Amino acid sequence: MRHLDVGAAIAAQSEWMEELLVALVQAETVLGAEEAGQVLMADAFAACGLEPRDVWLDAPALRADPGSSPFGWDPAGKRCVVARWPAAESGGRSLILNGHIDVVPPAAAELWTSPPFSPRREGDWLYGRGAGDMKAGLVAIVGAVRALREAGVKLRADVHLQSVVEEECTGNGALMCLLDGVRADGCVITEPHPDHLTIAQVGVLWFHVDIAGLPAHAAYAGTGVNAIEAAQVVLGALRELEVELNLDPPPPFDCLEHPINLNPGIITGGDWTSTVPARCTLSCRLAMYPGVSPRETQRRVEETVAAAALRHPFLEANPPRVRYDGFICEGATVRADAPLVRVLANAYAHVHGAAPALRPTTATTDARHFLRHEIPTVCFGPRGESYHGVDERVSLSSMHTCAEVLARFVLEWCGVPE
Amino acid sequence: MRHLDVGAAIAAQSEWMEELLVALVQAETVLGAEEAGQVLMADAFAACGLEPRDVWLDAPALRADPGSSPFGWDPAGKRCVVARWPAAESGGRSLILNGHIDVVPPAAAELWTSPPFSPRREGDWLYGRGAGDMKAGLVAIVGAVRALREAGVKLRADVHLQSVVEEECTGNGALMCLLDGVRADGCVITEPHPDHLTIAQVGVLWFHVDIAGLPAHAAYAGTGVNAIEAAQVVLGALRELEVELNLDPPPPFDCLEHPINLNPGIITGGDWTSTVPARCTLSCRLAMYPGVSPRETQRRVEETVAAAALRHPFLEANPPRVRYDGFICEGATVRADAPLVRVLANAYAHVHGAAPALRPTTATTDARHFLRHEIPTVCFGPRGESYHGVDERVSLSSMHTCAEVLARFVLEWCGVPE
Repeated sequence: MRHLDVGAAIAAQSEWMEELLVALVQAETVLGAEEAGQVLMADAFAACGLEPRDVWLDAPALRADPGSSPFGWDPAGKRCVVARWPAAESGGRSLILNGHIDVVPPAAAELWTSPPFSPRREGDWLYGRGAGDMKAGLVAIVGAVRALREAGVKLRADVHLQSVVEEECTGNGALMCLLDGVRADGCVITEPHPDHLTIAQVGVLWFHVDIAGLPAHAAYAGTGVNAIEAAQVVLGALRELEVELNLDPPPPFDCLEHPINLNPGIITGGDWTSTVPARCTLSCRLAMYPGVSPRETQRRVEETVAAAALRHPFLEANPPRVRYDGFICEGATVRADAPLVRVLANAYAHVHGAAPALRPTTATTDARHFLRHEIPTVCFGPRGESYHGVDERVSLSSMHTCAEVLARFVLEWCGVPE
Repeated sequence: MRHLDVGAAIAAQSEWMEELLVALVQAETVLGAEEAGQVLMADAFAACGLEPRDVWLDAPALRADPGSSPFGWDPAGKRCVVARWPAAESGGRSLILNGHIDVVPPAAAELWTSPPFSPRREGDWLYGRGAGDMKAGLVAIVGAVRALREAGVKLRADVHLQSVVEEECTGNGALMCLLDGVRADGCVITEPHPDHLTIAQVGVLWFHVDIAGLPAHAAYAGTGVNAIEAAQVVLGALRELEVELNLDPPPPFDCLEHPINLNPGIITGGDWTSTVPARCTLSCRLAMYPGVSPRETQRRVEETVAAAALRHPFLEANPPRVRYDGFICEGATVRADAPLVRVLANAYAHVHGAAPALRPTTATTDARHFLRHEIPTVCFGPRGESYHGVDERVSLSSMHTCAEVLARFVLEWCGVPE
């Protein structure tokens, strides 16, 4: 294998990879509709000469695991798709290559230059919801593996490929793969973190605040209490908490100006234009540093909401309720001197001519699950823009070079027989 | 007829009336589901010995009428149910007795003591959504008419009974009855305005403000603009407009402390908890005095929203859009010395021992349509509480005395042959 031209092997997959990416973006794999994408990923694993296998989400098993996040929906009938490239000999280090098939909704389809689920190419950019986050990352994984296998590469340790669901809301897909039993000496998640390896991430809490009002006829609005406006009191207090949480970031987050982001992401309130609204629900996302427990963050949120209610006579008597559905997850880090980081950085440097930066991210990823199970894990992937925004896009050339870095890394990490 | 005991005639209808009210409240006649109630009203008209007739909502005809309000839904297949009690002789004054079958949603069903569409009786109170607003008023109409007809009363002028749809959102049901051709010398709408006759009402504008944000991943929230929070800037400015509109109320509204109510009734924003929301829509109701044109009120709302946008850099570049769907209607008044007012007040005084007050209301009603067509119209009806609120209820005894007042009024207004 010493004389394998990895760049040429990846280039030979280029057309297949781009066609797969287009098909994946066309599959509208928002929460609850992931299956169309998993069908494509099962086919892609098969096209690598591997045997795809389903890992079905098991609600009771997930709920019983302390690393799971709560979910108010039924995950029955949802699967992660996995495949194992078995080692030909022993003596190497095994690897998990992981990516998620689910994407977030389009935010506002009418603001997009072209429809979010109709992939559009413009120069090096491929536009579409999920193109960057993270279907190009999944394609880079299968592109690398297919290139190596078609070149006849044998490995000294297993490589596990995983296309998981629910990374964007709970992480319970990746957790299910761990509950299914797979372990490895390292894991790379091809999230769109280009030009650097991500070695630390925040934890994330999703919480939903139900705020009560006193309904009344709009003609006598003064006799009611408007829940939509009461919600602003709660939101104001949560913004104050956010300021506090950003005052003194611990390393490695001290290099960032505003690592802890609160996002009031969804609001719904009222049921009739001429009725003073009786309720308003605010769904928020809040980050926390590694080492801060989700339980502690829940407590601070609940205390903040309770204190806000004291500023509002009606809320004082009718306290808002804080509910949890979706992420309750801790932050996580991998040692910067871990062999995984060094070997992946070397592969990167070989392709790019310089070592990648090692960085923290203000997002969560499925890496936390593997790290909790003591599997060293980093994120590294193609370069995109506007994740969760409009006109999300990914650089096709970066998808190809990512695949090349991965292929070189697999050879070095897993090892090849003499 | 001189010796008819009207009180006894109404009392004989008491059981039938209460059973009808219970059935009407059970019919969940929210917007789009009015038909179950209209079936009952057609039967009730038939039980008065009258022939019910359908007046179907005709979208093009409504849209062509300057008195209609815009509607973003399809009203096809919706009917008003009407019936005519034909005069036996001439020489009297004809009458329309009108009520609406539609009700507003429950605001928050979980806050009700018992389910909103499961009528519950407690002493004199009948609880349920729409019990007061205004199914008891519809029952009072048919109770009065049935009592008179079973007593063999003949009239000198026609009485038109109308059970209309869409009073709570457009008034297009009542308008359709006018487009159908009926006219009369007076009209009473049995809205739950007890102890007084309503002789002036505000106009109402429903408007919906679409506020844009800049979506982004919550992890990089600072790169986005949150539409939910931008909406607060708009709402703040609208609240300032409301203050201004209440500064110097013209008569007869100068007897009220706060006649012009703004109600932000519904809010929806965002599509994912971890995405900075790209849009937020705020649906509001705003009143206006009689004599102020809806067009002028629309202009002030649009100017207020536009001025608010200038306080917010992103909104300045991405101005909110104001849309109209539902009420665009003017205020209306009837002369306090109109014969209709005097004759109805006399009938009221006969039953209650004192004349009713004459009052303005801070709500709109279908009365405006009849007044626009120069048909003197007042609102008068049973006594209820918590319209549009929780635990809405109506006094059963007030429904019966309302029917008695109506019956006495019909005899006097329409006249009976010698």
